[in-house]
Amino acid sequence: MSNVTRRQVLLGGTALAGAGLISSIPSTPFTPSMRLMRSALGADIEAPDYVIRAHYNENPYGPSRVAIQSIVESIDLANLYADDPTDIVNLLSELNNVAPENIMVGSGSSEVLNVAGLLAGMARGSVVCADPTYQALVRYAENAGAKIIRVPVNEDLGTDLDAMKRAIRRDTKLVYLVNPNNPIPSIIEKNALREFVLEVSEKRIVYVDEAYHEFVDDPDYATMMDLIAQGQKNLIVSRTSSKIHGLAGLRIGFGFAHPGLASQMTQRRTGRLNIIGLKAAHASYQDQDFQDFTIRKTRESLAVVEGMCEELGIRYIKSKGNFSFIETGIENDIFQARMEEHGILTGRAFPPFTRWARISMAKPEDMRYFVQVYKKLFG
Amino acid sequence: MSNVTRRQVLLGGTALAGAGLISSIPSTPFTPSMRLMRSALGADIEAPDYVIRAHYNENPYGPSRVAIQSIVESIDLANLYADDPTDIVNLLSELNNVAPENIMVGSGSSEVLNVAGLLAGMARGSVVCADPTYQALVRYAENAGAKIIRVPVNEDLGTDLDAMKRAIRRDTKLVYLVNPNNPIPSIIEKNALREFVLEVSEKRIVYVDEAYHEFVDDPDYATMMDLIAQGQKNLIVSRTSSKIHGLAGLRIGFGFAHPGLASQMTQRRTGRLNIIGLKAAHASYQDQDFQDFTIRKTRESLAVVEGMCEELGIRYIKSKGNFSFIETGIENDIFQARMEEHGILTGRAFPPFTRWARISMAKPEDMRYFVQVYKKLFG
Repeated sequence: MSNVTRRQVLLGGTALAGAGLISSIPSTPFTPSMRLMRSALGADIEAPDYVIRAHYNENPYGPSRVAIQSIVESIDLANLYADDPTDIVNLLSELNNVAPENIMVGSGSSEVLNVAGLLAGMARGSVVCADPTYQALVRYAENAGAKIIRVPVNEDLGTDLDAMKRAIRRDTKLVYLVNPNNPIPSIIEKNALREFVLEVSEKRIVYVDEAYHEFVDDPDYATMMDLIAQGQKNLIVSRTSSKIHGLAGLRIGFGFAHPGLASQMTQRRTGRLNIIGLKAAHASYQDQDFQDFTIRKTRESLAVVEGMCEELGIRYIKSKGNFSFIETGIENDIFQARMEEHGILTGRAFPPFTRWARISMAKPEDMRYFVQVYKKLFG
Repeated sequence: MSNVTRRQVLLGGTALAGAGLISSIPSTPFTPSMRLMRSALGADIEAPDYVIRAHYNENPYGPSRVAIQSIVESIDLANLYADDPTDIVNLLSELNNVAPENIMVGSGSSEVLNVAGLLAGMARGSVVCADPTYQALVRYAENAGAKIIRVPVNEDLGTDLDAMKRAIRRDTKLVYLVNPNNPIPSIIEKNALREFVLEVSEKRIVYVDEAYHEFVDDPDYATMMDLIAQGQKNLIVSRTSSKIHGLAGLRIGFGFAHPGLASQMTQRRTGRLNIIGLKAAHASYQDQDFQDFTIRKTRESLAVVEGMCEELGIRYIKSKGNFSFIETGIENDIFQARMEEHGILTGRAFPPFTRWARISMAKPEDMRYFVQVYKKLFG
């Protein structure tokens, strides 16, 4: 893998995907089934000639065809100041049954997270979050002067709402929840979550990060979006086009909040929206087929990885998102390095779970290769 | 014009440009010279079938062909977290003879301006600026809690450095200069500017916004970039890919400062960079031909508009940028509305110069049509 170019790494999941999976056999319409046959016969899956990106929870299939068409059509607008988000705001308003005034558009949900961190920092207060969880908001808040209070997950590695409630101090300005969480892909039980939001938001902001919302299919899960529709104050819900829509590189994300808070957040953001991302997201959010396809493929990939865990007796957290969190028992730095030697990029260490690994779902065929490598190295 | 679609408005300056300029004559290789003949004979230039965007100081020719090629090539990266700005930072470092550590990349120079406004706001200080000038920084700063001190331009409508120096208070955290200024397209004399920067930056930040830098050809003008290279503290210079590079819709801009300040600004930005904009800018900044072409065409357009001013005895400020500021003598709201009836969008009012108009340079043929309309309406 040492001679792989940066471009090959970047293109791994998309343009080159499928190409050269079996480099010794000429590619024909029958190639996939031949590969499955070889696999069924116990023959090795050959290493793909691209790097498998299993490290950033991206969508290996995106952007969708309609998004790509929209990107191409909007190239002619690239010289114009045309970042009016009205179209995408109206669409998201319809899709989520909230008012346009409830919506803040950011350059990725990263920007929504950063702005919330900025508000907490400017208020010189503290922020309560689970540990581990996604770091963008707390990192920004800490840099901007907020104190961060990290509350360890419980024995089942679930977000510990009771402990978080106890950790809230008088100066706590914001409580940050990620649902499903990341790197631990579990959900917060919906009734407990709702009760928490209603109680805690009486005096401070509750931020529910729903970046992986579209992947969840669990009766115990619920979005908090309906509370926004009902006029709940002090609540921010965020969503993103980076995950299921496969538009991480184009930076379009959404914050939902009471109109006053949403407009304050829009005023505080320093970033600007690019026209190609706006157009691509507008197309993609109307493309349910692609979202369904992505979900189907993601579950197929998860079945491969979780199947391996069952087979080898590896502890893992049943995934509600597009990534796995598995107890490899190996220090993650070593695990990452060994995997990278075989052309597979995996997630960074998430202390204190340094002997666990976060594996983002690439395509099912890539995850089969991952399993083969894992078994050879550690099985 | 009332039936023109939004898409036609947006596409006016680029995709449809040139099409249908003389709708009654079939387009042939001889069409342009025929049009000139008609014009020379006093015949009317017919209204183009697109809206002329003379309101936002955009580049009617951009993006360049190499930028477009780069955009197309990077569509495959749109699903990836790939906003590492290393390549563009290294390129800008080379081009401007500064260290990579001197550079902050923002989603447009808007983000650099906003972050500077945020820093001033968080410090709860005041900001001194010329009046009129570009508003992004002061608007953000004011919203974030800063007091804005506006210093009227002098009799020649030039930035009044002496008055600005006198306006500085003990709590002034930032002095904002735009050079060339906007909406008044004049420059600040280079020696006076340098002296001002060196003196004022001893105790506070001086921000020199050089968005129109590439258009200037005047021995009395100088960039302050060399001071950055020399290690000057408390100085921010900004540049943008939105103007001469024609990439306003893709939001890539640059702040240059001492490494400590540059990294503080990067930490404070809430926005994120999109991969297509990064790739397009990287290509465009290496395309000197396109920049030269844009400058040539801009000067041709300016000659058309300034020629009209000379002919009709209209006061105007000799332009160093890609726009004119002319004393129409008509309240700008009325002027804008009359022009829009003829398919020409012009700049908003810039109080107290409400009887002046800012005219952004569209293509020369569009500016000839503008002149024809102007003469008919007001000549």
